[in-house]
Amino acid sequence: MPELRKSPILKRWVIISTERGKRPLDFKVVRDEPKEGFCPFCSGNEDKTPPEVLSYRDSGTGPDSPGWKVRVVPNKFPALQIEGDLNKRGEGLYDMMQGIGAHEVVIESPDHKKNLHYLGNDHIESVFCAIRERMIDLKKDPRFRYILVFKNWGKEAGASLEHSHMQLIATPIIPKRAIEELDGAKAHYAQKERCIYCDIINQELKDKRRIVYQNEYFIALSPFAARFPFETWVLPLKHISAFEKTDRNCFPSLVDIMKTVLLKLDKALFDPPFNFIIHTSPCNGIDFNYYHWHIEIIPKLTKVAGFEWGSGFYINPTSPEEAAEELRNIDISGDNQNL
Amino acid sequence: MPELRKSPILKRWVIISTERGKRPLDFKVVRDEPKEGFCPFCSGNEDKTPPEVLSYRDSGTGPDSPGWKVRVVPNKFPALQIEGDLNKRGEGLYDMMQGIGAHEVVIESPDHKKNLHYLGNDHIESVFCAIRERMIDLKKDPRFRYILVFKNWGKEAGASLEHSHMQLIATPIIPKRAIEELDGAKAHYAQKERCIYCDIINQELKDKRRIVYQNEYFIALSPFAARFPFETWVLPLKHISAFEKTDRNCFPSLVDIMKTVLLKLDKALFDPPFNFIIHTSPCNGIDFNYYHWHIEIIPKLTKVAGFEWGSGFYINPTSPEEAAEELRNIDISGDNQNL
Repeated sequence: MPELRKSPILKRWVIISTERGKRPLDFKVVRDEPKEGFCPFCSGNEDKTPPEVLSYRDSGTGPDSPGWKVRVVPNKFPALQIEGDLNKRGEGLYDMMQGIGAHEVVIESPDHKKNLHYLGNDHIESVFCAIRERMIDLKKDPRFRYILVFKNWGKEAGASLEHSHMQLIATPIIPKRAIEELDGAKAHYAQKERCIYCDIINQELKDKRRIVYQNEYFIALSPFAARFPFETWVLPLKHISAFEKTDRNCFPSLVDIMKTVLLKLDKALFDPPFNFIIHTSPCNGIDFNYYHWHIEIIPKLTKVAGFEWGSGFYINPTSPEEAAEELRNIDISGDNQNL
Repeated sequence: MPELRKSPILKRWVIISTERGKRPLDFKVVRDEPKEGFCPFCSGNEDKTPPEVLSYRDSGTGPDSPGWKVRVVPNKFPALQIEGDLNKRGEGLYDMMQGIGAHEVVIESPDHKKNLHYLGNDHIESVFCAIRERMIDLKKDPRFRYILVFKNWGKEAGASLEHSHMQLIATPIIPKRAIEELDGAKAHYAQKERCIYCDIINQELKDKRRIVYQNEYFIALSPFAARFPFETWVLPLKHISAFEKTDRNCFPSLVDIMKTVLLKLDKALFDPPFNFIIHTSPCNGIDFNYYHWHIEIIPKLTKVAGFEWGSGFYINPTSPEEAAEELRNIDISGDNQNL
């Protein structure tokens, strides 16, 4: 019997269709081999991107030249433009404003063929540090309300370049999904005076069935009302409202859990296309007692997009309990090359 | 300069990224040729589906045998099960219920290769009549709160069988997106005592830039804050809250506009994969003065899924004004085979 489950935060129902019970092999996506052509993100091609806004590089090397480990550049084809005023205006029923914002690309390493989780732990930590540095800087701009940080891996997940990278988009409005999460968490706090994410973590720690992995400061779990097969969330165990407020001594733990989860997903699902998104607090600087930052990882395995987009109703053919068990049991000891 | 636009109903912002200004040819999706293999929806294979719940067929032919024009059958692999009780229950923070519902398939014609809009007008009208009949019947079941009606065309849009069909899913909850539309429309009504969709139609009729097509009873337009390139809405010009309340004498007009818009999309975008969804009122029988049924057509052209799913933030590379102009100018006089 399929089960209907409600997200405790977003009040969205999903159908967990266990009788369709898809196994990892059913989801195998045939991926293109890496191409050998020109790549603007590779070392030596620094002049093919806009000038870098941040880089971690060997001492003695200059900006926009080889010698970097992590490099952040403005997107050459930005979704939003950095220069200008918002010019908010209306037209009858409609509201609009200029598309002002920042759109940056974090090039995770000079290596064209290596995804984030195949880098050494220190290197991955540098990537997350670069993101934190850029977030702190962008939050100073009073035009911006939210910083969206995400990674698309694989053409099927929307990546237009195959060289591994992440993106930051600073927006002059708070995205709808962030508002919904904040509203849902606020309603819970108003009733209980507790953070709903903290409550979820406590319930999951007792239940254990949906835990994928856990270390000193973080937990990875299959959310109870997962929309997608093998959707996995990574949350700090202790309450922290915003990504950039995370203590630097928690970063090795963050690197460990992201690496572990992404390696497990790779091995279980044959290097699937995926997205991950950092869900964090808006730019207003408030230390929300009801909001808890986290990362949502979504392997892109199903194609039932239009119906879901139209209705907000999701059918997930793999139960979160099955997905978590599968991922827990994957042995990645041979794959973690901490170079 | 890109533009940020807000949906007047859903309060969702989208980025209209006209500088990326994609033309129809940029979206061309390479589609698989129809396969010659076995199809359970073809005439002669009636015993390969569950027994039909409705059919329009030649007199003298019996159920589940050839001779039908339109046939409605339960889905062989239903997302929700028709038999049983809801058994609503909780587990700590979580709410769940049995996956009770109806999941039916409307096989639009016995012809394996013909999409809906290539059928004769009378035939298409029969398809919409069959949907109306099934909606009226399913709404009698007190367990159901909403009837979702949608069409997936093309593998990329989630169609698992290529023989043209539509689907009905009766759900024991109202889908999130329907609630959001109802809430948005209700808020407008509370302020103005007018239906927001009626107001949108009036504004669009004056403005003209986003109108794709119009006939006696319906209008097709590119919504102001379209999420997707060439997204097109079809609305009854006069206020009607629910699809099944539409007067039968409006049906030829509905057939004409759906056929025209789908033929134009086919010609402009090279037979793209697409979804359409009937947005209608819940099952409670209330004649909402603030809700206005309509059909949303979404060609599946872009792959930026994960980021959008995670943030609720959409980047549309084609402005609704450009899309509407393109579609208005497409001449389909040679393609409308009213057989």
